[in-house]
Amino acid sequence: MPVRLEASASGFDQAFATLLASKRESAQDVNDTVAAILADVRARGDAAVIEYTARFDRLTLTPETLRIETSVVDRAVETVDPELRDALAVAADRIASFHGRQVPQGFSYTDQAGVRLGQRWTPVSAAGLYVPGGTAAYPSSVLMNAVPAKVAGVERLVMVVPAPGGVLNPLVLVAARMAGVDEIYQIGGAQAVAALAYGTPTIRPVDKIVGPGNAYVAAAKRQVFGTVGIDMIAGPSEILVVADGANDPDWIAIDLLSQAEHDTAAQSILITDDRAFADAVEEAVETHLRTLSRVEIAAASWRDHGAVIVVDDLLAQAPALIDKVAPEHLELAVTDPDTLAERVHHAGAIFLGRHTPEAIGDYVAGPNHVLPTSRTARFSSGLGVLDFMKRTTLVGCSAGALGTLAPAAVRLARAEGLEAHGLSVASRLNMPRE
Amino acid sequence: MPVRLEASASGFDQAFATLLASKRESAQDVNDTVAAILADVRARGDAAVIEYTARFDRLTLTPETLRIETSVVDRAVETVDPELRDALAVAADRIASFHGRQVPQGFSYTDQAGVRLGQRWTPVSAAGLYVPGGTAAYPSSVLMNAVPAKVAGVERLVMVVPAPGGVLNPLVLVAARMAGVDEIYQIGGAQAVAALAYGTPTIRPVDKIVGPGNAYVAAAKRQVFGTVGIDMIAGPSEILVVADGANDPDWIAIDLLSQAEHDTAAQSILITDDRAFADAVEEAVETHLRTLSRVEIAAASWRDHGAVIVVDDLLAQAPALIDKVAPEHLELAVTDPDTLAERVHHAGAIFLGRHTPEAIGDYVAGPNHVLPTSRTARFSSGLGVLDFMKRTTLVGCSAGALGTLAPAAVRLARAEGLEAHGLSVASRLNMPRE
Repeated sequence: MPVRLEASASGFDQAFATLLASKRESAQDVNDTVAAILADVRARGDAAVIEYTARFDRLTLTPETLRIETSVVDRAVETVDPELRDALAVAADRIASFHGRQVPQGFSYTDQAGVRLGQRWTPVSAAGLYVPGGTAAYPSSVLMNAVPAKVAGVERLVMVVPAPGGVLNPLVLVAARMAGVDEIYQIGGAQAVAALAYGTPTIRPVDKIVGPGNAYVAAAKRQVFGTVGIDMIAGPSEILVVADGANDPDWIAIDLLSQAEHDTAAQSILITDDRAFADAVEEAVETHLRTLSRVEIAAASWRDHGAVIVVDDLLAQAPALIDKVAPEHLELAVTDPDTLAERVHHAGAIFLGRHTPEAIGDYVAGPNHVLPTSRTARFSSGLGVLDFMKRTTLVGCSAGALGTLAPAAVRLARAEGLEAHGLSVASRLNMPRE
Repeated sequence: MPVRLEASASGFDQAFATLLASKRESAQDVNDTVAAILADVRARGDAAVIEYTARFDRLTLTPETLRIETSVVDRAVETVDPELRDALAVAADRIASFHGRQVPQGFSYTDQAGVRLGQRWTPVSAAGLYVPGGTAAYPSSVLMNAVPAKVAGVERLVMVVPAPGGVLNPLVLVAARMAGVDEIYQIGGAQAVAALAYGTPTIRPVDKIVGPGNAYVAAAKRQVFGTVGIDMIAGPSEILVVADGANDPDWIAIDLLSQAEHDTAAQSILITDDRAFADAVEEAVETHLRTLSRVEIAAASWRDHGAVIVVDDLLAQAPALIDKVAPEHLELAVTDPDTLAERVHHAGAIFLGRHTPEAIGDYVAGPNHVLPTSRTARFSSGLGVLDFMKRTTLVGCSAGALGTLAPAAVRLARAEGLEAHGLSVASRLNMPRE
């Protein structure tokens, strides 16, 4: 049974804090193993990558077959169910359209001191996209990671995807083609991350690595951070649904389960102001769990991490609770979701109103489904175009402008004991040395 | 002697690659020590922080004296040299003005399918700023880290600064006051990072930690990443100066030394198209080194990591070399710096023209001086307002809009084997279950 909390009950604050602090992931310490793999790939290149792939993926490769040939992707595109291909195309178009709005503008201006100032955005030159193999090989994730990179202007987008036993999900290849991926290598694990970060004779290095993966991939990304950029380290997924009593309990139940079916460590939380509705949702969850195909996963998640919180007044009480959870996904199934949304500060993505199930955002709404988990929406954002770009600032002084700024700069440089800093300004203006 | 490379010489590519790959930092493995301190502070709170402060900073504190009293800051403000205070105020104003231009705009629109879409920016609620003690306690860094946080709208900005033996730089306190820092604690090291990340009875936790520090602080920031956000892990600083023969060699020499005086691991590189000018700069460097107060540091940096690269054509050849270095600071001391700047993709900050020494950007130009080092400008940016903000995306569907999106969404959910995802869309539209 999920936890049931009443906001008006004594001890609620403590119980809610316990819910927030509950660990949903078993931390697997693979750092040393990963460090050894990274060092080996760095030292021996392709040969190491090939050996680890043989060992972990039971797949024998050569430097020539590391890369998936264009013809293999062509064949996947030709043989995929046309309806599915069209559905992927709808998703790709809508994702590209939304992310197009994220492309940032630089600026430049001359201030009153005559100093030219500016900021410029440029794309990362080469990005690597890690795509898990096996059951977690989601074509939608390929689109969500690859499309923003291409919208940002990344010239070279490299995908790695393990093919255990030689098996690849053709939909993943189709999605990669649609998103404009330039190179695909059939490798995975820490060895693939190492190849992307350090390069090998066959695989040129990239500047940034994104995409989800298991504990080894996550540890590898953490370790190569600094050599390359990385996106977030994703934890188990979560949803917080705020629903009043006017909702169909069946809809809300299935929304909670759509999160729970991802992973036994996923978390689904309902906040409502209607106790009878809360009961009805819990009943509907149980009913659905009887027929759902991923019942073991969904039932375990709901039982171990699910929570139902009853408050007196949604508008008055929910926002503070939401901000403490800082949920990855926030569904506002109320009559006036906008007013509620305005009071929320911390959430990865917000789904407004009774007809906006979170799952629509996983596929075709347009915004990214790679979102900050485990309360990290307090300080981080979903994946987007900005993750594949960076800023350069610009300053230009005439002799006159430098003269205006110089006294303050030289004074501060001297106060900090950085003589050459001060001199580099002063010498251009024939200012006295001390 | 710095390395001298000629772009037209055979073997240049290899020599340049060696220069890029040269390690300037000795990696100090303090991970285990830091992990123990973090765990201890997490478990024992103030008591642990106080013990480590006594041990490492020779300073005896109590929970009541962890925080620096307002009156201490008042006194620093009153007793500081008024000219220095004014110089800090000039810097603070100019930094605030530039960073004000970085405040991002959200957007919202309704697309052709009738889907409401949007993106909203909100500030991090609480941020922590690490300020090193001792010789590296730079008031300018306080401004550069704190002002963007306040411009972003961070409500609670907490500063930690170690006071070894009880000694604090009053200018650091003055800068903190000017920048709007809300709380100051006289602690440092990994224990201060732990207090900020996990909180103690006296110090409430923050959501993001920024600021430079030694190897212990850097390791602590890496380890708490995920619990809180962090800024970059800064490496040793560098400058790349592109200068034609029309420059005063003395100006360029002092610019190279202004970087070298920071740290023996700092790197200064000159690219010029004039061999005689290169010789003149090297001579001028030697002359300055005779009188410079930080001669040991600057001389070691220039000798061990300095480089002079002579090319035939600056506009044709320098941009590709610059992009490979991806310098933290790029100074373009040429007649037409803008044309050259347009061809550069990767640099933290660009200084345009002969009258824009890099040092002016360290203090009063306005853009941030916290910039990506060690080639990380390939994928990351200087500190700015965006580092203290995050995005939330919004989606709102009417029943009709959901109906338009549903077929593609349900098809993809089923293809990915996520039944509840499909059902959460389909059930709202009375779509057939399979």
